[in-house]
Amino acid sequence: MTKMKSCHEFYLVYTLSLLFGLTCIIIVTTWSKGYRGGFAWDGSVKMFNWHPVCMVTGLVVLYGNAILVYRFPFTWSSSKFILKLVHATLNLGALSLAIIGLVAAFGFHNKMHIPNLYSIHSWVGFAAILLFGFQWLLGFLAFLLPCTPLWLRAAYKDLHVFFGLGILVMAIAASVSGINEKLIFVLNVPNSTGPYKNLPPEACLANVLGMMLLCFSLTIAWMLLKHKWQRPNACETVISDATEPLLTEN
Amino acid sequence: MTKMKSCHEFYLVYTLSLLFGLTCIIIVTTWSKGYRGGFAWDGSVKMFNWHPVCMVTGLVVLYGNAILVYRFPFTWSSSKFILKLVHATLNLGALSLAIIGLVAAFGFHNKMHIPNLYSIHSWVGFAAILLFGFQWLLGFLAFLLPCTPLWLRAAYKDLHVFFGLGILVMAIAASVSGINEKLIFVLNVPNSTGPYKNLPPEACLANVLGMMLLCFSLTIAWMLLKHKWQRPNACETVISDATEPLLTEN
Repeated sequence: MTKMKSCHEFYLVYTLSLLFGLTCIIIVTTWSKGYRGGFAWDGSVKMFNWHPVCMVTGLVVLYGNAILVYRFPFTWSSSKFILKLVHATLNLGALSLAIIGLVAAFGFHNKMHIPNLYSIHSWVGFAAILLFGFQWLLGFLAFLLPCTPLWLRAAYKDLHVFFGLGILVMAIAASVSGINEKLIFVLNVPNSTGPYKNLPPEACLANVLGMMLLCFSLTIAWMLLKHKWQRPNACETVISDATEPLLTEN
Repeated sequence: MTKMKSCHEFYLVYTLSLLFGLTCIIIVTTWSKGYRGGFAWDGSVKMFNWHPVCMVTGLVVLYGNAILVYRFPFTWSSSKFILKLVHATLNLGALSLAIIGLVAAFGFHNKMHIPNLYSIHSWVGFAAILLFGFQWLLGFLAFLLPCTPLWLRAAYKDLHVFFGLGILVMAIAASVSGINEKLIFVLNVPNSTGPYKNLPPEACLANVLGMMLLCFSLTIAWMLLKHKWQRPNACETVISDATEPLLTEN
């Protein structure tokens, strides 16, 4: 009965995080399409518009869901190997979207002769994607290759889980600073709909996006850290995983 | 022997976090004093300069240390009541610095006829301080008042610990966006030392501050979340705390 209640609670919080996540994707698309002229892949500002959409969709929303797969109660009796594949595949999707988002920003900057990677927004965002790439590669080597030494797999697990959440935090810091930067650049110029400080509708919309991203990441973190929603016998799982040739698991 | 090794590891990571934290305070003070004209309390930009210094020192570095007090191995055999008082006092110091930082920004804005709380930086930062205030008050009511119902104290603990870390994440998102915003405002104008995109020394220094803040918060989060560094018998502690009149504990 208590277990059932705990499951219901999990799905309630997950539904909330899904609503936050979907709201983020809807807002960032509306912002880019409705206020910033839509999308293209030609080095113009319309190419840049893919940047926030890909980052919010990939590096935050899809990524947040990808790091959560082990927490769904219905998976606790499933094969852990299948879960690992789902986790790795979703993360690869998130990483690919993040790289497309990065290329979109670089393409726009290069065409406009704007230097890349000068702002703290870009430093934090680029560091997040670099870490994400390393994390994916190391995760694959450590947990999916059967030849990885057992001690290495056990030693790396805590770090992998920690940086899973750390990358989400970095993505949120990059997103909030990116929204701030973009609004200053497009609103604090002549012929805009109004300076940022007057909070025109576009500024309100993008500010709400920032707050929704924060709410999304907090609900994801809550589900990740809540002890009772962690996959049961996690410690034993490391040991049993470590002793099994993972690529041959069903 | 293993316990001793674990203690040494903790203090090693703590020393690293201290170095990051001190570097942050040194950089933000150097930035405000060396590049932005120093400090005053007169509504000028020199009054604003207290804002980043107080926020970095209070809302990030002191706060990060305050939420860590239960993790120091040397305190595990101490009275938990004393620890609670230290935790509450350090947090009150951090909250006070954050409020001074907020007043410094408002004072500058009001004198310059700049609206308050329009940017996503300010929304996230203000939300962090509001949450911090509530968290402090609820923490006091729940864990330091002896008349608090036991079920409420037990039910609130998880949420209190989670938002402890959540507020740090919000503070980091606010700091990174604040650094970005300030650099755009002061560097992308005529007669500056150079536009932000050319990365003049001031921009490098403030960008490094952002990365150091991130490193500081990651080391704090690592120490908070690492299971072996959590106060032993945490579950039993809730129960025993709950049954004791805390304000009369020695």
